Amino acid sequence: MSGSSFGKIFRITTWGESHGAAIGVVIDGCPAGLSISTEDIQAFLNRRKPGQSKYATKRQESDQVEILSGIFEGKTTGTPISLLVRNQDQRSKDYGNIASVYRPGHADYTYDAKYGFRDYRGGGRSSGRETIGRTAAGAIAAQFLKELGITLTTFAKSIGPISVDENEYCFDDITGNSLYMPNNARAKEASEYLDNMMQNLDSAGGVIECIVSGMPAGIGEPVFDKLDAALSQAVVSLGAVKAIEFGAGTKAAAFNGSNNNDDFYSEHGKIQKTTNNAGGILGGISDGSDIIFRTYIKPTPSIAQSQKTVTVDGENTEITIRGRHDPIIVPRAIVVVESMTAITLVDLLLQNMSSRFDSILNFYRP
Amino acid sequence: MSGSSFGKIFRITTWGESHGAAIGVVIDGCPAGLSISTEDIQAFLNRRKPGQSKYATKRQESDQVEILSGIFEGKTTGTPISLLVRNQDQRSKDYGNIASVYRPGHADYTYDAKYGFRDYRGGGRSSGRETIGRTAAGAIAAQFLKELGITLTTFAKSIGPISVDENEYCFDDITGNSLYMPNNARAKEASEYLDNMMQNLDSAGGVIECIVSGMPAGIGEPVFDKLDAALSQAVVSLGAVKAIEFGAGTKAAAFNGSNNNDDFYSEHGKIQKTTNNAGGILGGISDGSDIIFRTYIKPTPSIAQSQKTVTVDGENTEITIRGRHDPIIVPRAIVVVESMTAITLVDLLLQNMSSRFDSILNFYRP
Amino acid sequence: MSGSSFGKIFRITTWGESHGAAIGVVIDGCPAGLSISTEDIQAFLNRRKPGQSKYATKRQESDQVEILSGIFEGKTTGTPISLLVRNQDQRSKDYGNIASVYRPGHADYTYDAKYGFRDYRGGGRSSGRETIGRTAAGAIAAQFLKELGITLTTFAKSIGPISVDENEYCFDDITGNSLYMPNNARAKEASEYLDNMMQNLDSAGGVIECIVSGMPAGIGEPVFDKLDAALSQAVVSLGAVKAIEFGAGTKAAAFNGSNNNDDFYSEHGKIQKTTNNAGGILGGISDGSDIIFRTYIKPTPSIAQSQKTVTVDGENTEITIRGRHDPIIVPRAIVVVESMTAITLVDLLLQNMSSRFDSILNFYRP
Amino acid sequence: MSGSSFGKIFRITTWGESHGAAIGVVIDGCPAGLSISTEDIQAFLNRRKPGQSKYATKRQESDQVEILSGIFEGKTTGTPISLLVRNQDQRSKDYGNIASVYRPGHADYTYDAKYGFRDYRGGGRSSGRETIGRTAAGAIAAQFLKELGITLTTFAKSIGPISVDENEYCFDDITGNSLYMPNNARAKEASEYLDNMMQNLDSAGGVIECIVSGMPAGIGEPVFDKLDAALSQAVVSLGAVKAIEFGAGTKAAAFNGSNNNDDFYSEHGKIQKTTNNAGGILGGISDGSDIIFRTYIKPTPSIAQSQKTVTVDGENTEITIRGRHDPIIVPRAIVVVESMTAITLVDLLLQNMSSRFDSILNFYRP
Repeated sequence: MSGSSFGKIFRITTWGESHGAAIGVVIDGCPAGLSISTEDIQAFLNRRKPGQSKYATKRQESDQVEILSGIFEGKTTGTPISLLVRNQDQRSKDYGNIASVYRPGHADYTYDAKYGFRDYRGGGRSSGRETIGRTAAGAIAAQFLKELGITLTTFAKSIGPISVDENEYCFDDITGNSLYMPNNARAKEASEYLDNMMQNLDSAGGVIECIVSGMPAGIGEPVFDKLDAALSQAVVSLGAVKAIEFGAGTKAAAFNGSNNNDDFYSEHGKIQKTTNNAGGILGGISDGSDIIFRTYIKPTPSIAQSQKTVTVDGENTEITIRGRHDPIIVPRAIVVVESMTAITLVDLLLQNMSSRFDSILNFYRP
Repeated sequence: MSGSSFGKIFRITTWGESHGAAIGVVIDGCPAGLSISTEDIQAFLNRRKPGQSKYATKRQESDQVEILSGIFEGKTTGTPISLLVRNQDQRSKDYGNIASVYRPGHADYTYDAKYGFRDYRGGGRSSGRETIGRTAAGAIAAQFLKELGITLTTFAKSIGPISVDENEYCFDDITGNSLYMPNNARAKEASEYLDNMMQNLDSAGGVIECIVSGMPAGIGEPVFDKLDAALSQAVVSLGAVKAIEFGAGTKAAAFNGSNNNDDFYSEHGKIQKTTNNAGGILGGISDGSDIIFRTYIKPTPSIAQSQKTVTVDGENTEITIRGRHDPIIVPRAIVVVESMTAITLVDLLLQNMSSRFDSILNFYRP
Repeated sequence: MSGSSFGKIFRITTWGESHGAAIGVVIDGCPAGLSISTEDIQAFLNRRKPGQSKYATKRQESDQVEILSGIFEGKTTGTPISLLVRNQDQRSKDYGNIASVYRPGHADYTYDAKYGFRDYRGGGRSSGRETIGRTAAGAIAAQFLKELGITLTTFAKSIGPISVDENEYCFDDITGNSLYMPNNARAKEASEYLDNMMQNLDSAGGVIECIVSGMPAGIGEPVFDKLDAALSQAVVSLGAVKAIEFGAGTKAAAFNGSNNNDDFYSEHGKIQKTTNNAGGILGGISDGSDIIFRTYIKPTPSIAQSQKTVTVDGENTEITIRGRHDPIIVPRAIVVVESMTAITLVDLLLQNMSSRFDSILNFYRP
Repeated sequence: MSGSSFGKIFRITTWGESHGAAIGVVIDGCPAGLSISTEDIQAFLNRRKPGQSKYATKRQESDQVEILSGIFEGKTTGTPISLLVRNQDQRSKDYGNIASVYRPGHADYTYDAKYGFRDYRGGGRSSGRETIGRTAAGAIAAQFLKELGITLTTFAKSIGPISVDENEYCFDDITGNSLYMPNNARAKEASEYLDNMMQNLDSAGGVIECIVSGMPAGIGEPVFDKLDAALSQAVVSLGAVKAIEFGAGTKAAAFNGSNNNDDFYSEHGKIQKTTNNAGGILGGISDGSDIIFRTYIKPTPSIAQSQKTVTVDGENTEITIRGRHDPIIVPRAIVVVESMTAITLVDLLLQNMSSRFDSILNFYRP
């Protein structure tokens, strides 16, 4: 089945394996006339590129993007945009033993169960390198949002057990530490925690938060394509995500209606809310306040400790994973979460354009 | 945009407003030859029907389903199945004031922001009655799964702050209390909590857990239609859901790789796992163990306390919601979560049938 | 698979069998604020209703439509519009023998080949009554187009071998004869031809032409959703259609480039063409001139003559079809072709709204 | 909007402009385990490659395909297959004047009307080079069909006014002449006709016929995704197609029911038909006999004669098109029609796999 596409109007199709020739994406349905450069896209890819800090894989990939179609003289033409990144440092020999043994926490077994065999060089299609296509497309979506005055702030709220409380948020700090936490002091603690993990040949997870500002009210399509439902599919489709929550999230389940409801009030002719437990979404439609959600990322499953597992022939065995793996993927996943968010928002903004007949009349008979 | 449909092969389209003539669903893509009766569908609808306990709205609706097409002599024909439930007890006058005032926690404001106006009788399309269509379709999907030996166990893990620990689970208790908790003692505590809420003119939320047993390995479509991504869209598309988590869920973010990874082992020729932090899904594909996820439901937003809000003209005001509202929707939402899960699983089981060319050869040239 | 839906933004889903309880359609994605009444929809249905002339089946069906959702106080609300028509005169006993014998020219055999069995009362889902849903939806699409100043003129160009040449067209005549031909004299000839066919227990086919005026340039989506490609799917999906052609159509294949190309010229600031061999479409996109296409309809397959065929058990036999069948379906099919055209045009008009980024900027940041 | 994709399960997305860096396609939903080589794909591309005869453009393109993903050790893996062809001989200077002038019969004007501007080097996205992606994907679909015993015979039935009657068909001749006509004598006449056209700086059209043998009965999805409806969208989406007909096609409209209906008979336990006016499709579903359809191709719009037209600023002018253009595109379009047919058939074969519940039970619980 065709699961490699996402979006209805602004629609991306990603392709490529970890150790194949290249990775890429086709973006169909991007409107004509949006200014975009190779540099804009490269800037996004650089945020997820390996080798940026000691907490990332040592695999050497420049991840240079090539624009193959859909952009002419610096502007989108309305036709599909094809973006390509060549794989370079495919040391497949590191992966020799995973051809015959299933790595715990990975998709080796489930791909075999589904397809009968798999591209066993690295994770194949289930590798984190698949997110290159999402990120390249995300750069274009982010540019689209920027021109509409919509901004995304995405950061590591937690690394392992080290978490930044909302009242400690300092957004200027996000780019001031290699973990992209909104508090440099907490980032230092988290670094120490990670150093310890690495010494133990272990890995860590964390929480990514995304805040969308400037979103107009009215975005999101009832019933199944609600804004939160679409974001959930978008974000949970990332391999390591184990949970997503909006606004008060899991805590809302223990609240009462009287303290969970956000009161409305009107000021300067604008309808606003006193609180934002809803996370900016009511009935699946944006309410004009900040959209806030958190994504829970599991620890990297590739660890250098010995683990019990089975071979492809069903023999019990042990595996010690070599190769070049991130002890934590949260810092590199931030731009990927931001990309999926941007893609989802652009798609829903475009879908919303046909919601009122008077707009359509105005469009065709101004 | 067309957001009222869900699924790719087994595809449902719901329609209908809270206070319109009727509510319904069209299921397209259900294979021919599945036995299904009006009673099978009615049994599911009765699980969400109002008036079953003191914790549910007093609105009187028999919610009798009528099969209009797609079933002939007790079997599906492969053509679209149209199911209809007439609305009966539409006391729209209860809703008089919500025509001009936005209810906190509801979608009144966002529908107006999107469409310019709305059907202000009850919640219109954003009402919980919209889930009748999902539930009727879910009954058919559940029947499909049952014939394949796949069973769903869905229950209230928490009501407000009262939660049942995993080691207290007693699945026989689920139908032994009106809250569908897997522990009658905890259910009694929860009832007392709810009684107190009702006295305070307040409402409560809770957590619904769903466990899927008997699922074959290999189900779920990379990359964007992963099993967990599809379930997330399906379940978060329910109005009151604020979070979803799979397996260890939010806790996985603070785990280490060494204790989060589930080791594989082989026994009696079957590949199994020592633990199930993954919740039965690896790389977005089922691994043959139980699929486990939890859904966090916010407290009912309709409460009889006075709340601050604004009018449709942007004037600050207060609102006291009358009408017949559930103090908690968790018990009635259980069958809806189960329905959305069943629909998602059937769709992905059908999608998986074209994953291997040898199966296709075998199908067409046996 | 889910083949009962058509359209991407303005999306219809039809359901119902010839001799089931009812026939209907759900229209999802219709913008909010379009004025529409039961009478508007009924007027379209009356154009295809049986029993309007001696050339139509004697089956008595009032085909009264009921609006179940999506329209409130005379306007669409943006939510799905559910429309229902009850079947009344289901004289299934007329169809007794077709349960066990395959009718030539019908889909009895192919449905059995696909699904293993079928609803053998009438044609089930392959009956012409399925088009009731399309026509009800077409009424809404036509209303949408009318408000944009786009008009459709649809008529019988040919009945059997009797054809109206383009230079004989008199559009005022279309409603002046029961065959909807644009020339009353030719219609009289055609009536005599049909009377003869009926005496011979035989049936006839014909050609339906549709002319769309007032269509703006720029509508149609490259590459696979070209305007002509979308119309082809829409119209060929009608059971009896055997061919479709645009503009010069089949004749263009024998033309030369120099006489097939339509020269452009500019007059009063508007770009126009000297001829219209293209049928108003260039590269799959409307060019602002009239869109013209013709649909070739086969003769009604149900004839009262004895025909050779086989039983469901593969025995050679003969069949004489009783029941109440149209000797020609062209007159009743005209409004159905017009409906499918209107639905396709509305969908592509909506799709086009996101083609330019400057329009989007203007929409969200006016 | 996202019009660059076709198919539901076997889904292709094409991208690339005539004079951009490259042209390509992503095929998502191809089952795992199908043997395919670069040579298989190249063989298809070579059939449409320019420069094969004097009737084709002199543009020099080797059209070498590169497989970037989805194929591992000679077999499809079930993941998206990305195929790339670099453009080489982009003599854009030939196209200098078309930046400012609209070519008659081309999509220059309509692209400008839609998007506000266009990639004016060659036809951009509307160029025939876009069909490279379709053809590369078609090679894989054809391989799929071949393994199922389904064969496609595609040829030029007519070139301009020179047509081969059905009783003159000699399928061995098809590869014996550079026009791919099923009769060498007629091909010689057609060559003389084309030589004459070229001398007159003019161009010609023609008719392509496709015959599918070995198709099982039961393929095609009611109601909107009927086999003929899907083929119509697929084929009419090719730029130069002006009509499509199935079986008796346009002629059926003048037939009577008694001579248009194909009688069934049973022989050796197989249900067959005495004639095939239906073209192998009843009610939109294959009936097990040959599927036959014809596609009418307009003459190449690029001719070296002077033509009247307008500038992008709306000034009346004349244009003489230089560059390297085919005097007829029919011979090169044959493999493209065959490709679109193969893609459509594969998609519908896969869709059909979920039509019966007993097959599903057998698949999951053998």
